[in-house]
Amino acid sequence: MKLEVYADRMSQPSRAVLILCKASGIDFEEIKVEISKGQQLSPQFEAINPFKKLPAIVDGSFKLFESHAILIYIASAFPGVANHWYPADLTRRSKIHSVLDWHHLNLRQGAAPYVLHTVLAPVLGRPSSQQAAAEAEKILTSSLSKIESIWLKGNGRYLLGSSQPSIADLSMVCEIMQLELLDEKDRDRILSPHKKVQQWIESTRNATKPHFDEVHNVLYKMKLKLSSLRSNQVDGMAGSRIKTPPISKM
Amino acid sequence: MKLEVYADRMSQPSRAVLILCKASGIDFEEIKVEISKGQQLSPQFEAINPFKKLPAIVDGSFKLFESHAILIYIASAFPGVANHWYPADLTRRSKIHSVLDWHHLNLRQGAAPYVLHTVLAPVLGRPSSQQAAAEAEKILTSSLSKIESIWLKGNGRYLLGSSQPSIADLSMVCEIMQLELLDEKDRDRILSPHKKVQQWIESTRNATKPHFDEVHNVLYKMKLKLSSLRSNQVDGMAGSRIKTPPISKM
Repeated sequence: MKLEVYADRMSQPSRAVLILCKASGIDFEEIKVEISKGQQLSPQFEAINPFKKLPAIVDGSFKLFESHAILIYIASAFPGVANHWYPADLTRRSKIHSVLDWHHLNLRQGAAPYVLHTVLAPVLGRPSSQQAAAEAEKILTSSLSKIESIWLKGNGRYLLGSSQPSIADLSMVCEIMQLELLDEKDRDRILSPHKKVQQWIESTRNATKPHFDEVHNVLYKMKLKLSSLRSNQVDGMAGSRIKTPPISKM
Repeated sequence: MKLEVYADRMSQPSRAVLILCKASGIDFEEIKVEISKGQQLSPQFEAINPFKKLPAIVDGSFKLFESHAILIYIASAFPGVANHWYPADLTRRSKIHSVLDWHHLNLRQGAAPYVLHTVLAPVLGRPSSQQAAAEAEKILTSSLSKIESIWLKGNGRYLLGSSQPSIADLSMVCEIMQLELLDEKDRDRILSPHKKVQQWIESTRNATKPHFDEVHNVLYKMKLKLSSLRSNQVDGMAGSRIKTPPISKM
């Protein structure tokens, strides 16, 4: 029985899990659960993840959710996953745990609410708050600075001075990739001061191609839709809405 | 060279690490870093944790921070740590990772800001917000309900239906223990609907005695001080401040 990955490619942790599976040549089945249609709320999915969030996996009779736990499980259970994704060495592995833990209350706390309160909420018809956006931007830019000065310190291309990516690189880069949805000016303002972060995103993309862009394609398409919507609004057609799936925070 | 644990017992993740070390009979040195005195901001400590947060460990030349990463490292590196704290079996281990990941954006997001904005901020002379307290309480009570209905589902005394505690039990119980600082009425209102949670705290305390109460003693003392301060305020002596160390969020 194949590994089943329940995912919505609009959810950044779903993308991280899918890219690891694809880049490692795992024979798995992607089961699409569309957040925009509320499919994660179905009783069938609740039996897999009672918290009703994506991603989740089923491997035989074993069910698991929370993306970092899934990434570690896949890297440990499938021999096809290269050692650099989750090294067997305890000290290297522990440092990766440290980055993954840090991610939750830093980068994730900035990126997702910033994108929600700037570009997504208005088109979803959900309430947005300038104050929430400003607070999220503070956390986001502080997190990017810390990634650059602490986690990317040294000469390695990847986090922790490594020459090859780990599951922590994948998780954090996928988180940052949601900034693609922003207005070009906002995205530049936030990302352009962080040259090392930009190089690191490119390195991670290159290390996992063609899967990285294939999995992110839904995001690139959404970027075009949002951009076209913004142009229309500038042309006096404000108020229209497009169907945009929300980004999962999990 | 002994394992060094940099900790402030007022910080809940510091307590979890200390209890694991003590309950496992590890020969370690506790190095007190007092947050109330800003000692975590010193260049010496910054060389151990550039994020200037507690806890952190030094094991020979190896440095590590983020409490969950530390708990996993200690359970993996020291043979004296019983298997139940972090089982070797991949599926059991993965479920523990799932709980630990969930903790970050749920229980932790509720408990720490609630205690800060209700009892700690006023005595620390830091700004407190009723709205922030109300939002934190919502996350906290929802998290406690989910711990009870999902993580403590079944007949086991501990999370995931286990008969013995894991590092996830220790981390979450230490987080909840900060509610000791609350006004008795508030604490009862929040905890009393969750009988299973209360039993689980007791089971974890019993499984790690006498270390659990010894490590939490500083919290029990602070509870008395805060309670006496509240009585004084009721008696018209409002405005006085006691020296209370802030609770670390890490």
